Amino acid sequence: MTALWRRALAEALGTGLLVTVVVGSGIAAASLSPGDRGLQLLENAFATALGLAVLILMLGPVSGAHFNPVVSAVDHWLGRRTSTGLPLRDLAAYISAQTIGAIAGAILANLMYAEPAVSWSTTDRSGWHLLLGETVATAGLVVLIFALGRSGRSAVVPAAVGAYIGAAYWFTSSTSFANPAVSIGRAFSDTFAGIAPGSLPGFIAAQLLGAALGIGVLALLYPARTVTPHQTGAPK
Amino acid sequence: MTALWRRALAEALGTGLLVTVVVGSGIAAASLSPGDRGLQLLENAFATALGLAVLILMLGPVSGAHFNPVVSAVDHWLGRRTSTGLPLRDLAAYISAQTIGAIAGAILANLMYAEPAVSWSTTDRSGWHLLLGETVATAGLVVLIFALGRSGRSAVVPAAVGAYIGAAYWFTSSTSFANPAVSIGRAFSDTFAGIAPGSLPGFIAAQLLGAALGIGVLALLYPARTVTPHQTGAPK
Amino acid sequence: MTALWRRALAEALGTGLLVTVVVGSGIAAASLSPGDRGLQLLENAFATALGLAVLILMLGPVSGAHFNPVVSAVDHWLGRRTSTGLPLRDLAAYISAQTIGAIAGAILANLMYAEPAVSWSTTDRSGWHLLLGETVATAGLVVLIFALGRSGRSAVVPAAVGAYIGAAYWFTSSTSFANPAVSIGRAFSDTFAGIAPGSLPGFIAAQLLGAALGIGVLALLYPARTVTPHQTGAPK
Amino acid sequence: MTALWRRALAEALGTGLLVTVVVGSGIAAASLSPGDRGLQLLENAFATALGLAVLILMLGPVSGAHFNPVVSAVDHWLGRRTSTGLPLRDLAAYISAQTIGAIAGAILANLMYAEPAVSWSTTDRSGWHLLLGETVATAGLVVLIFALGRSGRSAVVPAAVGAYIGAAYWFTSSTSFANPAVSIGRAFSDTFAGIAPGSLPGFIAAQLLGAALGIGVLALLYPARTVTPHQTGAPK
Repeated sequence: MTALWRRALAEALGTGLLVTVVVGSGIAAASLSPGDRGLQLLENAFATALGLAVLILMLGPVSGAHFNPVVSAVDHWLGRRTSTGLPLRDLAAYISAQTIGAIAGAILANLMYAEPAVSWSTTDRSGWHLLLGETVATAGLVVLIFALGRSGRSAVVPAAVGAYIGAAYWFTSSTSFANPAVSIGRAFSDTFAGIAPGSLPGFIAAQLLGAALGIGVLALLYPARTVTPHQTGAPK
Repeated sequence: MTALWRRALAEALGTGLLVTVVVGSGIAAASLSPGDRGLQLLENAFATALGLAVLILMLGPVSGAHFNPVVSAVDHWLGRRTSTGLPLRDLAAYISAQTIGAIAGAILANLMYAEPAVSWSTTDRSGWHLLLGETVATAGLVVLIFALGRSGRSAVVPAAVGAYIGAAYWFTSSTSFANPAVSIGRAFSDTFAGIAPGSLPGFIAAQLLGAALGIGVLALLYPARTVTPHQTGAPK
Repeated sequence: MTALWRRALAEALGTGLLVTVVVGSGIAAASLSPGDRGLQLLENAFATALGLAVLILMLGPVSGAHFNPVVSAVDHWLGRRTSTGLPLRDLAAYISAQTIGAIAGAILANLMYAEPAVSWSTTDRSGWHLLLGETVATAGLVVLIFALGRSGRSAVVPAAVGAYIGAAYWFTSSTSFANPAVSIGRAFSDTFAGIAPGSLPGFIAAQLLGAALGIGVLALLYPARTVTPHQTGAPK
Repeated sequence: MTALWRRALAEALGTGLLVTVVVGSGIAAASLSPGDRGLQLLENAFATALGLAVLILMLGPVSGAHFNPVVSAVDHWLGRRTSTGLPLRDLAAYISAQTIGAIAGAILANLMYAEPAVSWSTTDRSGWHLLLGETVATAGLVVLIFALGRSGRSAVVPAAVGAYIGAAYWFTSSTSFANPAVSIGRAFSDTFAGIAPGSLPGFIAAQLLGAALGIGVLALLYPARTVTPHQTGAPK
């Protein structure tokens, strides 16, 4: 087992660079394609799908490449009885590292594009339909990752998760944040991909609800007796 | 063998989310790129190709991930003599689940985008050339899936079917529905990806014709003696 | 070894559907995105990259999925001394099937879009720089396919060839026809992807020159002593 | 071990064609989509991601498909004590071949599009934020390639590196040159993808800084004791 400090570092780096990809490509898209918001989202989705897949490939062997407190928490929850999940102490370290990394990643994107290091987003994202979108997006992500793990196909997680987010940018009304740490990071940039701090509680609540829904779907479709120690979620 | 109720649930969920992807991304595309219908279709095709591949990955081990009455029916037909295909009782359950799921998926997409839960599509899709497009699209889909199965390459079905539909949105004049359940679901949303209920009979007839054509091509190119029990269509 | 008639049928079907993809998506792109020729080419390249990969997957086990007289001819040439290449009689059958299929595929695309079954293209494609583009495009295609074969990686040929053509639409000035049969087929449709019959001789000559250049590069980089019987080009 | 002349030839050819892809698709994009710079970059990124992956597939077995002096130098540095890296003599040959190839590739792109064979780029690319972008882009590339090598997953290098550059075109402010040889080659074309010769020193310095940063990250996350002889970077 890789040392916890090394795994936490990988989670911080990976979540950070994920936010850099999301925010940075959003800034570029809004600047270069000012006339069509759909084209901006296509550019943002293209970059995010490819970049996320690459980051999971890059850091998966170190930490499992969760990059997402919801994924870490579900990993802990699903493996709590069989000692195959993330222990509670590790979970705390993962979530802390993901959140700090996400903020740093937003600052890096801001700096690369000569924006102020921090500018609170003013993009209000509220309304029950957006929260429904977040719930669906997060439930789908959770089912996908752990379905692949429970069926012994963790090797396709990088491409599958990248593709999922690329599609979910489009088919959910919320453009699929599906990640509390990334949501917090995106609040630090008043650009295309930002979210006003006041919209965070709703989004994070919807993401937690989605995670619970995902666990329920997994219980129905991939019952736990099929789990073996080497098949718990993303590659360890 | 997974219990039938679980497989039917997977078919309902998968077909439903497929319709959510198609309809939801269509709503987003039409709203965000109002000035160019081609860009709308590109955004719709991008989301569908990725989303469909992911859904097949997610649910393939449970039900085979047919998500399509035509695929289930061909699976039944091709394996009827060797007891390797879907039994008739399962076929009825699959088709029912797919159809109910598809309708629910359209409603979910409508709700996520704050549209009325149900609004009958008014998009007329008729004309012999569109029916020719549907026939070709469905024949190609059937040949692809069962050619991969009969040659022992079911592991690439997710990516291959996603890519096929992404291309077929463009090269067939009908934008390749190629799926009776999804066609019915799309009638429940008066948005970009909708189809007027009155156009359904023609589309479904063309899809059935395409399936028969696909079976004929398979008989010529991949004769059944090459089938072994573990190679019948999508992963079981 | 699969019977020759079956292999020739697969070559006709695959080359035909490839032309259907190229011409059909071109018609759709030009019609739906009238304001930006780059967007049209992006849509055309997206559909072709995915569609070509899928067709090779679909028919590779039957005929090797050459879909291209240049590829068949190089396969014959490189294996002429070791009896691992396509025999001369098969080569003639392949090229005939590819050419007939390509013409039928263009007609199918025309019909699906309610165009006249045949309308000679009036798109002049001449100029030394376009011929240089075709030469480079064809040489690259030949090196790619046989490099993968000679290094035992034929399983990635479908994705690699699709990706290559998707890129070559953009980086060669000729938009990379790189295929005499497809070039002939494209002359039968006076639409986006067409080529005037009078431009065919130059394009085909450049393609043959590119094939010879590709054989030379292969001789330098992948000398033939590394060939083993099961590694000759695309999957047999 | 493949002869050095053959490996150097592969590096020259691969780096050259990479520049041809970058510059050629940039010329096409700027010409065909004059109204939207974002769409131009999307077209350029689409072609580069696919083309780079294909070139690594095509030439990896010959030379390792570095196509980048920074990658070759890091390969030398990381393997200097265990004799698993590129020897110094080979490093010099690789860098020379890459640089000469890159210049030839730019000239080829110019010629294919009927531009003057050489026209010095006048695109000034300066500013600390662009240099920060280059540093991040190069560090990420180095970490990705050697993380995959050190974890025994070199087979996914082609797709992963293509995807990385496709994303990095968007998330870094510099559009991710990340390659001294390619940067020099791009100075030879006064078109979309060009860079003024006066901006080269800053870019190359940032790339070297990024490489050093990448080595540091690798030391933290993938300590060298995990390296085995057959896992040094790209496929040999």
